[in-house]
Amino acid sequence: MTDDATTELAQGWLARLEAALLAGDAAAATALFGAECYWRDFVALTWNIRTMEGRDGVKAMLAATLAHAQPRGFALTAPATRSGDIVEAFFRFETATGRGTGHLRLRNGEGYTILTTLQELKGHEEKTGFTREKGIVHGARRDRRTWTELRREEQQELGRSKQPYVLIIGGGQGGIALGARLRQLGVPFLIIEKNPRAGDSWRNRYRSLVLHDPVWYDHLPYIPFPAHWPVFTPKDKMGDWLEAYVNLMELNYWTSSEVISASFDDKRKEWTVEVTRNGEKLVLAPKHLVFATGSYGPPREVTPPGSDIFTGVQYHSARHVSGESFRGKRCIVVGANSSAHDICADFWECEAAEITMIQRTPTTVVRSESLMDVAFASLYSEEAVAKGIDTDTADLIFASVPFRLMADLQRPVYAEIAARDASLIRRLNARGFMTDYGPDDSGLMMKALRTGSGYYLDVGCSELIASGMIGVRSGVEISRLTPTSAILTDGSEISADVIVYATGYLPMNEWVARIVSREVADLVGRNWGYGSDTRGDPGPWEGELRNMWKPLRHENLWFHGGNLHLSRFNSKFVALQLKARFEGIKTPVF
Amino acid sequence: MTDDATTELAQGWLARLEAALLAGDAAAATALFGAECYWRDFVALTWNIRTMEGRDGVKAMLAATLAHAQPRGFALTAPATRSGDIVEAFFRFETATGRGTGHLRLRNGEGYTILTTLQELKGHEEKTGFTREKGIVHGARRDRRTWTELRREEQQELGRSKQPYVLIIGGGQGGIALGARLRQLGVPFLIIEKNPRAGDSWRNRYRSLVLHDPVWYDHLPYIPFPAHWPVFTPKDKMGDWLEAYVNLMELNYWTSSEVISASFDDKRKEWTVEVTRNGEKLVLAPKHLVFATGSYGPPREVTPPGSDIFTGVQYHSARHVSGESFRGKRCIVVGANSSAHDICADFWECEAAEITMIQRTPTTVVRSESLMDVAFASLYSEEAVAKGIDTDTADLIFASVPFRLMADLQRPVYAEIAARDASLIRRLNARGFMTDYGPDDSGLMMKALRTGSGYYLDVGCSELIASGMIGVRSGVEISRLTPTSAILTDGSEISADVIVYATGYLPMNEWVARIVSREVADLVGRNWGYGSDTRGDPGPWEGELRNMWKPLRHENLWFHGGNLHLSRFNSKFVALQLKARFEGIKTPVF
Repeated sequence: MTDDATTELAQGWLARLEAALLAGDAAAATALFGAECYWRDFVALTWNIRTMEGRDGVKAMLAATLAHAQPRGFALTAPATRSGDIVEAFFRFETATGRGTGHLRLRNGEGYTILTTLQELKGHEEKTGFTREKGIVHGARRDRRTWTELRREEQQELGRSKQPYVLIIGGGQGGIALGARLRQLGVPFLIIEKNPRAGDSWRNRYRSLVLHDPVWYDHLPYIPFPAHWPVFTPKDKMGDWLEAYVNLMELNYWTSSEVISASFDDKRKEWTVEVTRNGEKLVLAPKHLVFATGSYGPPREVTPPGSDIFTGVQYHSARHVSGESFRGKRCIVVGANSSAHDICADFWECEAAEITMIQRTPTTVVRSESLMDVAFASLYSEEAVAKGIDTDTADLIFASVPFRLMADLQRPVYAEIAARDASLIRRLNARGFMTDYGPDDSGLMMKALRTGSGYYLDVGCSELIASGMIGVRSGVEISRLTPTSAILTDGSEISADVIVYATGYLPMNEWVARIVSREVADLVGRNWGYGSDTRGDPGPWEGELRNMWKPLRHENLWFHGGNLHLSRFNSKFVALQLKARFEGIKTPVF
Repeated sequence: MTDDATTELAQGWLARLEAALLAGDAAAATALFGAECYWRDFVALTWNIRTMEGRDGVKAMLAATLAHAQPRGFALTAPATRSGDIVEAFFRFETATGRGTGHLRLRNGEGYTILTTLQELKGHEEKTGFTREKGIVHGARRDRRTWTELRREEQQELGRSKQPYVLIIGGGQGGIALGARLRQLGVPFLIIEKNPRAGDSWRNRYRSLVLHDPVWYDHLPYIPFPAHWPVFTPKDKMGDWLEAYVNLMELNYWTSSEVISASFDDKRKEWTVEVTRNGEKLVLAPKHLVFATGSYGPPREVTPPGSDIFTGVQYHSARHVSGESFRGKRCIVVGANSSAHDICADFWECEAAEITMIQRTPTTVVRSESLMDVAFASLYSEEAVAKGIDTDTADLIFASVPFRLMADLQRPVYAEIAARDASLIRRLNARGFMTDYGPDDSGLMMKALRTGSGYYLDVGCSELIASGMIGVRSGVEISRLTPTSAILTDGSEISADVIVYATGYLPMNEWVARIVSREVADLVGRNWGYGSDTRGDPGPWEGELRNMWKPLRHENLWFHGGNLHLSRFNSKFVALQLKARFEGIKTPVF
């Protein structure tokens, strides 16, 4: 609910905050917050992505940044709303160098959570709406250069006579979203994609794949999916969308190209990058290098003892395209997360004779319908759109929750989901399939943020397991292979014609090890997780995802990745950080 | 301005109208209108595009259509507004078969203008927003057919084992917009395009071409241009947008294909259409044939006496690509409308030695800036977007003005434009270039609607004429050619290396003559114009554009065309008319 008093409360609080900030008085500003409080900042004050916790945390950040950031001009952008003792409000603000949007939660009148996000740099705003390009200089002119000629020239020069300021390794959704932002900001960039066509990273996947997240969650920046677009985009349609997007957004995008190696010159602050393009070798010299190679590192290949004598087919799940050639065959899939499920279902659809999934640890299984109804509905759904919650607003609300509170907020969501999915889970467990909702019952999304694995969003395979069409062996692993079978750690034997290792992926920084050096990869460290001190995400507490979208321990090196939602939202902040550096704006990182 | 009394007035009037309509009382309904009144209907009551004028006209239409159309459920969709003695309101309504939107003007409380447009057919609504496709059937299934497989199968069968219900000749913006609508309505269609790629009809034009209309006027349905898109789209960028659109909207679109002939079987109510596709001959059997071949017929070729002995280059403006090969040459351009201007400017940019434009009759010249500021600003501009006037609303307001009132409304617009452009016009006239604002001072748009010719939207060439860089000979024609020159009707001679005939195009139904038969072309008659009784648009008064987007004198034959605005707006009504016939809904044409 909203009323004038609530809005005045929020406005008044922001006014007092601003007065303290303008006075450079970090202590006075901090005193407006409750004992439990969080300030999450995306690049606006900290030139970093950081969550400050507690009054001390907030105070330290303000003390370090106030003098140069000079945040001010805080103003509500909509009436505040109240729910119990919590008042929520959206606001805008500016800093010495930029303008931003934010979100505020007061608890009993005291600051509880505040989010500040940089949206544009002053004097470097995107040309859109009223300020869009005219597209033509009216008047006849003998030195006319048409759009096509300018575009062709840019493409011919880039990487040869002109160097990109930013080199993006990987032309999937991450690289594409970042490239689109950089293009609109006027930062010279080049995307390197190994496949022959943009979108191939989707097209090359197994035939039955559709996006597991719904359309409202998946929009790219600038050109949203139209209103008739299906809820779940089929993989090839997604590929076609990305390919069209690359062209329409005028991205500089090299296909059939690969980065072989990269090294950084500390003095010139410049990378030397060896690239092959359609077989030709080129050396590029960008200032910044962005790994947008997906959410994971290279496949985690496993070779159980006996791999060399097994006479059937073995491959990692990343190379699975179709089960068609295994009609009538006996199939083992090692692993019990998303890929393992999709591949098992594919084998079943292709009428494999026998399919066994080997599950080592419990999986979080959530029916797609349940996730849509309970988890997505409030922010990313047609209902949300009808309520005026556009993608930007939804993303801001999503980002407004600090990691420290996230698991607590997810727990009731998964209690509700557990109730809805109880029958399926019971039947899965009865078949020996182990399930959980994470180490702290916080569910699928927290698993994704902590480790990027350990779950299956059920779009059909669970029913095959529950009904016994797909066999499960749980709590065991393959101990060795014979020429025609796998021997499990409990001594049992499964005959097999094909074994697919859905054993996941190495850490993201493994790409850095392969392209730059092991040393730099180790210096930078792992990605994802926030120090939750749960399996796969060791402490200490970080409060933000490790190494994603923000400065690393190695200069001029960046990671950009994640699903479509994370790529869309965070590409803005990566782009603004790069733009600031491109323009020589000071970016003191807190 | 808007107030409760104004809204109540409009609501009350619609309620009285509805009561009379529900009672089937055409006389009572008509009595609500003033002596001067107009009812414009797009397919909602009349299954036609008609403007009824005067109480008698309205009464006759209602008497003929009320029993089956059963219009009802009239309700305002926004508060009404008043300006002087005119009250304006938007409303929705339904009929026995569909739902529609409309616009109402009351004058002194009496009906003055009413617009009714059909927007959807009951039971055949487009799947969008809440009703969009899911994109996947959850659950594993052995008969799974993926999106790609279904799409490939459709493409392989169409025109071979399965016939399209609608065959669209021409894959420019008209055919594409109509195809997109038909796809969303589930009507099987096929677009035949002669060029190798969608968008080539733009790419193939001369290099400096950009759209002369601004972006807000040019949106296609379903996927609007993004907010950073330039105001004036360069031709190749437009081509790329259309090509991407064809793919993303999943249009069935044959490139490098041409329709050779078509004949209608009266008994089977079916066309037999000979098509070549990449050289292969095919015979198609659609029920409906749509000519979406642009706004004009084939080029109007002229061959003055002596054409055969002229030793230079001669061609029609439709074949002009670039003036580059005429550097240092003497050029004549016959004609003084848009193409003639653009080609003269191109010759000048390419440094032709001498350029002469031969003008037979006066041209309406309007500076692009003036048209943007005075004519487009209220409906199609960033200002309009900021005021909440989206494309659909702008199109509805635009359509709300009956042709009888249009010229009167355009006159003050052109008085303002004449004042703004006075200096340029004076300088043009001083060079002997003849200008007018149409026979009744109603300006460029009315000329476009009446004859599709006679104007130039100045994007630079006029300055070249005004400053004498391009010569003009006015009120004359070529009487004959010598091997190296043109002799004009005033006896003067101009030496020339190249002559471009920007002499316009034959009527649209000339394509019907070439593909179907002269007999059918004559039966159908001419397109465009509304019987304004001005040059090129003879009376009697028709009150709507001839033969565009509505049933013709020959069944199952349609014309669809016009600029991007007209294609966007009217494609909806063509598509709904075809959908109704496809579904076997009765469509009694008034």
